[in-house]
Amino acid sequence: MRDVAVHTSQREYRVRVGEGALARIGAAVWSVSPHGRALLCSDDNVAPLYADGVRQSLSEVGYNVTSVVVPAGERQKTLATVQRLYDEFYDAGVRRTDVVVALGGGVIGDMVGFAAATYLRGVRLAQVPTTLLAQVDASVGGKVGVDYRDGKNYIGTFYQPLLVLADPLVLATLPPREVRNGLAEVIKYGLLVGGDLWARVQGAARTGQLSGDLIADCVAVKADIVARDEREETGERHLLNLGHTVGHGIEAAGGFHEWSHGEAVALGLRAALWLSVHLAGLASEQAEQANATLSAVGLPERFPRAAAGRALELVGRDKKAGHSGVEYVLLRALGQPVRGVHVSAALLEEVVAWLTSE
Amino acid sequence: MRDVAVHTSQREYRVRVGEGALARIGAAVWSVSPHGRALLCSDDNVAPLYADGVRQSLSEVGYNVTSVVVPAGERQKTLATVQRLYDEFYDAGVRRTDVVVALGGGVIGDMVGFAAATYLRGVRLAQVPTTLLAQVDASVGGKVGVDYRDGKNYIGTFYQPLLVLADPLVLATLPPREVRNGLAEVIKYGLLVGGDLWARVQGAARTGQLSGDLIADCVAVKADIVARDEREETGERHLLNLGHTVGHGIEAAGGFHEWSHGEAVALGLRAALWLSVHLAGLASEQAEQANATLSAVGLPERFPRAAAGRALELVGRDKKAGHSGVEYVLLRALGQPVRGVHVSAALLEEVVAWLTSE
Repeated sequence: MRDVAVHTSQREYRVRVGEGALARIGAAVWSVSPHGRALLCSDDNVAPLYADGVRQSLSEVGYNVTSVVVPAGERQKTLATVQRLYDEFYDAGVRRTDVVVALGGGVIGDMVGFAAATYLRGVRLAQVPTTLLAQVDASVGGKVGVDYRDGKNYIGTFYQPLLVLADPLVLATLPPREVRNGLAEVIKYGLLVGGDLWARVQGAARTGQLSGDLIADCVAVKADIVARDEREETGERHLLNLGHTVGHGIEAAGGFHEWSHGEAVALGLRAALWLSVHLAGLASEQAEQANATLSAVGLPERFPRAAAGRALELVGRDKKAGHSGVEYVLLRALGQPVRGVHVSAALLEEVVAWLTSE
Repeated sequence: MRDVAVHTSQREYRVRVGEGALARIGAAVWSVSPHGRALLCSDDNVAPLYADGVRQSLSEVGYNVTSVVVPAGERQKTLATVQRLYDEFYDAGVRRTDVVVALGGGVIGDMVGFAAATYLRGVRLAQVPTTLLAQVDASVGGKVGVDYRDGKNYIGTFYQPLLVLADPLVLATLPPREVRNGLAEVIKYGLLVGGDLWARVQGAARTGQLSGDLIADCVAVKADIVARDEREETGERHLLNLGHTVGHGIEAAGGFHEWSHGEAVALGLRAALWLSVHLAGLASEQAEQANATLSAVGLPERFPRAAAGRALELVGRDKKAGHSGVEYVLLRALGQPVRGVHVSAALLEEVVAWLTSE
């Protein structure tokens, strides 16, 4: 087991990464919230696999457990589903000192996290991510929320959990597309940090072997950045957005189902690499190496030209945009990110044309 | 003009209290958010009185102003109205660095504040309270949210504004019931602090004269408590709940329209005084003096017996209750609050029987 500490103004907490962590979840949650009720919230993909075991472990340590299962999928990440959770909380008479356990992928973590953040102005929350994407990214840092109209995560807040529990054993049950989804973020961390981490990420991409240690190292990168800019105010946290500016536009253009988050981020990373070569002095061999790593794990290289216009329009609606417009994170070199870069409309059209070429 | 500083972990901001503050709102908002768009949000009671003037002042300093008017009333303080605000924000292309101006009473401040807190995970917010209740209470301290089913403010978060602007001149247009509504909270501050403030509160109750200075002093009491316990975690902030535990139950039992917040709080304060005499050693002459002050401004002394059962049930759902049950703030003496008091079901029934006696 490795514990990665996360320091935020709301609270200090740890991300526990290790094989078998899920089997001992009851004791881990009890150590941070030793009384009351546990609300176990998952979706109908995850519940059949893990809910029984988690429920039993929570009961054994003394929790009165209530289970809630919602339909799976990004399209369910809406205010309507959040209201369904509020109703379950209300009917169960949930109190602030009860603990909500979000068991599932990023959609569950974001949505259940938002419900927990806003019910009674905040009840206790434990994040138990069951996808690689959620383990290395979504469950850490306190961003919670839902999609709204065409806006990905347009409604949300910052709310830190009491505990995050990431068990790499659950990755064995993931479909390959889901693993790729997370690998896009793992590759992003490698590009941001460079050096040894990048070498190990390339190794994992080559062999398909993903260790708990590599997951914990990715979490530590994120925890460090989050600690320096908890609420996305100083700009530091924007580093994590490498590949996400164009990525979010593509993801939204596909209605959040055509391309998974990781696939869209992979395309966004390719766009960022292309822009980095043109605007930030990234050596084209380094960009090629990074593109090859994305391809090695099966992440997409192009998207259909028909979606280009809509994607461009939605990049302009980036919710992190300030009054001076959309800002990009690019790379001077692998491990040397630069943020706050403005990209002209012409250049943006050019990179999207490249990404949609045959 | 008096500026009361509020120190929170999210940000430092000031509450500006003074006659004529509203007429110069543009410059005040510009001083904290000097660019972009202003979203002026109010309701159909307040908009006809003040929206034109505010809009003009905001435009004059350089804002591109978009106005949103929603129906007035506590029954509108719902997720449905919040979604209407999200839609307006979305259609206007609001960015995080734009500023939302919440112009109105507590309902507008809570609901528009919640929309601003959660849209794009938080856009800039200026609170411009136009009722006494909102000026001395709701607009300060960062609590935002909406009602849910029978739960008052059951959905919400903590979100600090960039600025609060309270102009006592607007109180002249308030109906007397609205002024009483705020006086319940003013009296609460007097009871919590005692001494000179209590003497001045009694004077205001007697003469009906409410100065900007007294408003600013009430705000300063709240700001001090909020600074010590921003997210209601240490218990310190619970002091502000004097009279609210039973008050919220009565308010909810009346469906949030039978009794106004202030009327329900006045009844709750009477309950707290009665319980303080029985459990905390408050001298009965002091309780009588406080009850007389509530009566002097026309706040209610009793509520119908038919509502007693429902009120009792809803007191038990207090959203601040922890695993050990509902906790009360009582008074050892005027100016000497004590918190964390547990009240037996029998005694609670007794005080409600007294409050519903002929």
